[in-house]
Amino acid sequence: MKIVCTKSNLVKGVSIVSKAVPSKTTMPILECILIDATTDIIKLTANDMELGIETIIEGDILEKGLIAIDARIFSDIVRKLPDNTITIETNSNLQTLITCEKAKFNISGKPGDEFSYLPYIEKEQAVTLSQFTLKEVIRQTIFSIADNDSNKLMTGELFEIHDNQLKVVSLDGHRIAIRKIALKESYPDTKVVVPGKTLIEVSKILSGETENDVNLYFTKNHIVFEFDNTVVVSRLIEGEYFRIDQMLSNDYETKVKINKKELLNCIDRATLLVKEGDKKPIIINIGDETMQLKIQSQIGSMDEEIMIEKEGKDLLIGFNPKFLIDALRVIDDEEVNLFLMNPKAPCFIKDENETYIYLILPVNFNAGV
Amino acid sequence: MKIVCTKSNLVKGVSIVSKAVPSKTTMPILECILIDATTDIIKLTANDMELGIETIIEGDILEKGLIAIDARIFSDIVRKLPDNTITIETNSNLQTLITCEKAKFNISGKPGDEFSYLPYIEKEQAVTLSQFTLKEVIRQTIFSIADNDSNKLMTGELFEIHDNQLKVVSLDGHRIAIRKIALKESYPDTKVVVPGKTLIEVSKILSGETENDVNLYFTKNHIVFEFDNTVVVSRLIEGEYFRIDQMLSNDYETKVKINKKELLNCIDRATLLVKEGDKKPIIINIGDETMQLKIQSQIGSMDEEIMIEKEGKDLLIGFNPKFLIDALRVIDDEEVNLFLMNPKAPCFIKDENETYIYLILPVNFNAGV
Repeated sequence: MKIVCTKSNLVKGVSIVSKAVPSKTTMPILECILIDATTDIIKLTANDMELGIETIIEGDILEKGLIAIDARIFSDIVRKLPDNTITIETNSNLQTLITCEKAKFNISGKPGDEFSYLPYIEKEQAVTLSQFTLKEVIRQTIFSIADNDSNKLMTGELFEIHDNQLKVVSLDGHRIAIRKIALKESYPDTKVVVPGKTLIEVSKILSGETENDVNLYFTKNHIVFEFDNTVVVSRLIEGEYFRIDQMLSNDYETKVKINKKELLNCIDRATLLVKEGDKKPIIINIGDETMQLKIQSQIGSMDEEIMIEKEGKDLLIGFNPKFLIDALRVIDDEEVNLFLMNPKAPCFIKDENETYIYLILPVNFNAGV
Repeated sequence: MKIVCTKSNLVKGVSIVSKAVPSKTTMPILECILIDATTDIIKLTANDMELGIETIIEGDILEKGLIAIDARIFSDIVRKLPDNTITIETNSNLQTLITCEKAKFNISGKPGDEFSYLPYIEKEQAVTLSQFTLKEVIRQTIFSIADNDSNKLMTGELFEIHDNQLKVVSLDGHRIAIRKIALKESYPDTKVVVPGKTLIEVSKILSGETENDVNLYFTKNHIVFEFDNTVVVSRLIEGEYFRIDQMLSNDYETKVKINKKELLNCIDRATLLVKEGDKKPIIINIGDETMQLKIQSQIGSMDEEIMIEKEGKDLLIGFNPKFLIDALRVIDDEEVNLFLMNPKAPCFIKDENETYIYLILPVNFNAGV
């Protein structure tokens, strides 16, 4: 194989597919990037067997062929080469010569045909949305997936399409995040659970531009993201997702309207007094025109008052401050509404049209504090 | 004690003195910042017994007094408070109330009189240079101090003043860095060894502006840096510094003039093939008009040629690539001159007036490579 391409194209392509290179694996071939120049395009592929990414880069093929090269070393070398044309040439012993100006690197490759190609997907109708929208909806929900594997379904996000609405849901047993997005057209009903890791990696590659689209394809076991010159194929998580509708409620006894930034900054300050791993709740005392926030730990105590508009009853309730911070950080509204029932019932942060709903369970606290 | 000051003044002061707070200590009082408002100024002090820093911040003293507060917690709280006026008030139980707008933090302090004040220094004549110059000279030499304590003198830098010249020297047994600076006037001869840690912390606080000066004072056991509203006092390292003059030489058999950036980038690329802890030399083959650089490791090999102007003999010599990179990074000249003798003798990188001299010992290598 012998190919020529610019450094910038190669760096971009390598950085995209590297997102699917596993950090740990028992199969050394998976630590490689496959360079496939067997046809008339140059395609880079990486695949950790759950998540696979391929991307096409511009360049010239002087001799057809394919080679698998250690992803980390290849990526390091390519990034440090001068900003010029790079030639990659392999010989029959899989020795790979990477040349750029007067710099010559010689490293060992692995046979390209040992590489696991992405599964072939029979693509049906595409669901189209902007890269910006997909990137945003991932950011606004991904923090409330569970990070351990004790319940596999909690490590993914529900993508549910009904008519022209995409609903994305994540939950970890203590909180739920829900975002609804209006699509440009209607699609057949779809309900899949996408691994959180896939969404995190995809969102790193998405350009985040509103004018660039991404096409989603769904099959029984896979989701495909197609955008720019890149295809991402990921396994889905099997099983039926949680019935979240029965956890939601529109009843409330107390409604609080509050400046989002003030609330967020106050809780953020309060967490200074909480050492990592320590589970001190922030205690919220909702009165007529003010909400008092208190936290107390071995380090000291904090106490702050914020002006609010309140409907309904006074309430004293405690929360894990991190959960409030996570939700408030991804809400763009200047003012937010909190809906509460009693000290044992969840708090809902949601807008009028329920384009977002964040449910957070309260925690017990010593009322004497 | 009760004082009032702006957040920005307090943040700046706390961040300056925090540089002298030890990360580990058996004396908990040293983990504190002393707020001293016993006179008519507000002074913050931190002191790890080797290095002490005090700085004066603007503000109003409503009630005189002093308190020591845990540096980390105090610094975290102050930085997260709203950008407004902060009040710090202590009661007789050393409880400290920090108030800003509606936020109130309550933390425990320690008695201020248990704090170790900075040693009193009888100041004689000041040596004055710009903050920029001092910051630069530290950056240009600090990398070649030794990082272990097996030879205490190697963990510091020689500051030698003779007439109107300041010479700064660091060495670690494999290399020497020397920088010479012309001072505005002549001073009495001075020769001290300043701890590397002191210089690293001082250089973080220096503004780096050419128009701001710093005054240095020397005593038998201490160096004092005085600038802006800040005083840094550090112990000196005892003992006689190495006689470096006898390690320097102006003889050479090979002189190479080379573009600094090309050389630096090339060596930087080569180190990609060297895993951390691995001691692969870069092998330099000096010919008539080109210099060939080669590195070979388990990962692969690299090979690159750079155009040079050469005087004298051809030479094949090996170096620890990191030592070359460290020196080249802090040289501002576009072209550098390397002076070499033979494969066992040190390489000198220096300018015509010897305002800088970097000496690097070569390493043995397998000539068969």
